[in-house]
Amino acid sequence: MTLPLALTMGEPAGIGGEIFLRAWAALRTGTVPFFLVGDADWLRAVDPSVPLAPIATPEAANDLFRRAAPVMHAPLPARPVPGRPDAANAPAVLHSIASCVTFARAGRVAGVVTNPIQKSALYDAGFRHPGHTEWLAELTESSGPPVMMLACPALRVVPVTVHVALARAIDALTTGAIVETARITAAALRADFGIARPRLAVAGLNPHAGEDGAMGHEDAAIIAPAVAALRAQGIDARGPMPPDTMFSPRARKTYDAAIGMYHDQALIPLKTLDMDGGVNVTLNLPIVRTSPDHGTALDIAGKGLADPGSLIAAIWMAAEIAQARARRNA
Amino acid sequence: MTLPLALTMGEPAGIGGEIFLRAWAALRTGTVPFFLVGDADWLRAVDPSVPLAPIATPEAANDLFRRAAPVMHAPLPARPVPGRPDAANAPAVLHSIASCVTFARAGRVAGVVTNPIQKSALYDAGFRHPGHTEWLAELTESSGPPVMMLACPALRVVPVTVHVALARAIDALTTGAIVETARITAAALRADFGIARPRLAVAGLNPHAGEDGAMGHEDAAIIAPAVAALRAQGIDARGPMPPDTMFSPRARKTYDAAIGMYHDQALIPLKTLDMDGGVNVTLNLPIVRTSPDHGTALDIAGKGLADPGSLIAAIWMAAEIAQARARRNA
Repeated sequence: MTLPLALTMGEPAGIGGEIFLRAWAALRTGTVPFFLVGDADWLRAVDPSVPLAPIATPEAANDLFRRAAPVMHAPLPARPVPGRPDAANAPAVLHSIASCVTFARAGRVAGVVTNPIQKSALYDAGFRHPGHTEWLAELTESSGPPVMMLACPALRVVPVTVHVALARAIDALTTGAIVETARITAAALRADFGIARPRLAVAGLNPHAGEDGAMGHEDAAIIAPAVAALRAQGIDARGPMPPDTMFSPRARKTYDAAIGMYHDQALIPLKTLDMDGGVNVTLNLPIVRTSPDHGTALDIAGKGLADPGSLIAAIWMAAEIAQARARRNA
Repeated sequence: MTLPLALTMGEPAGIGGEIFLRAWAALRTGTVPFFLVGDADWLRAVDPSVPLAPIATPEAANDLFRRAAPVMHAPLPARPVPGRPDAANAPAVLHSIASCVTFARAGRVAGVVTNPIQKSALYDAGFRHPGHTEWLAELTESSGPPVMMLACPALRVVPVTVHVALARAIDALTTGAIVETARITAAALRADFGIARPRLAVAGLNPHAGEDGAMGHEDAAIIAPAVAALRAQGIDARGPMPPDTMFSPRARKTYDAAIGMYHDQALIPLKTLDMDGGVNVTLNLPIVRTSPDHGTALDIAGKGLADPGSLIAAIWMAAEIAQARARRNA
């Protein structure tokens, strides 16, 4: 039997409800059933024209999926106002995430697709984790660090550092961190993406990858040893690559994932290519977890403008990763 | 009368000869005549099948252009070997550049399109300028600093800092440098690109443009004041923009040029989109100067693999800029 995917509610003042309902309308006749853990009254207010199917168990989603959007009701204490997050709803937002993770760990759903959250609203309510992903790693008792991959049909990128100031990202860059990120990426490409011998392109840090030391020492001193260590471990890694040319259409064909040295080096090429179809995949978790590659979009929430493209891509990718893991474990 | 464009020889061990001959074959029936200042024997060896027209003056290029590739002969002392730059040829490489500039300053050519040079070979021969562009500014007695713009049909980008290590680029970033670069860009968009009221998108430095100070202080302390100063001067500038999302297909429609804070932030999105059609335009020079957006490609020189796309785009763009300047001065 196909297991459904569990979708979290995300920030109810954002576009999560809209894109869930639109994604259901787009995918209802497909082969990937899913349900959302969230407030059914809120979803009815978001779009009264979409039929909802209340469910009490994940298993119930499969039968109902073609007829109505399955929702496991989890009430919100405050009525959401589009664009205005309310800390009173934070416990329910967190509960939705925890429920989905529980179902995934119990093997009752194929994976979890998380809608965007508004961290400031959660912090106001006492949330004490650096972010969504770190909390998921804790909930799943993950043995290693979670690693963020951004993927679209044309490119997969994995940054070694993420949400830190650029100057600090440079200071924090180590050979060990690059090797660990690349190893996790190579393992995920094998296990989750079905790529038997993944090819990694490791970015340089400086213009032209330092041009033999003329522009910065990090490429030779930190990144080149990481590439050598990876190759010594049998991983097909190349680099440090000149960052500006490694994402060209021609260069992209030569690798399965690019390892970026900082947030924007990895995210700029991906979002330049594909703002709407990008997917955020968390590597190195025991459960399958994807999410759309955008935020809560408070500025357009409630206006009927939200594009479900990235959520739809995240749902598809979660299903594909779950299938790859199932094949591997069969 | 249409003035021709002057093309420099560039590094004769690179792909300059191949792409010149292919560009001529592609453009010979068009409306933009051009000639190359370089060694005719070298060009004959590169591709004996292409007819050459020896010329002694720029004016002679126009009449001959449809029948043969016009070449103003400037002999190379050493026979070029593809892939192996020879410092013995450096004076001739520099002479070609200086000749083209002289013609442009005298109003005898519409502009200069430079083929890629191999700086190391020039340095070995005593060249003492940081690069091609800086030397052109000196040759043209330019009153302000030259500024590099990279342009393709989908995007124009201008980095505030160029060939320095990333950590130094961060240290060197000042409000004044951003304002100067943006002002020069806005002036060039008006004068050279015919955009009456240019819209500039100024990138942030840190992930999410610092997220209100959570990730780095530079966005608020250095970049935001630059945007405010530009707006106070009547320039339509916005920012600091989150670097990862500002190059998305949707965001690109909202501005005429992006001001990047460092080399790769500006060049990655451009080369991600369009490796072959990108053009390097030098803003703030008294002459028109463009060049292809790639290097000497020593690894493929002499193999018949070189793509003339970027040189062709550079030729077109030089012609368009020359026409825009002529209209403005008419």
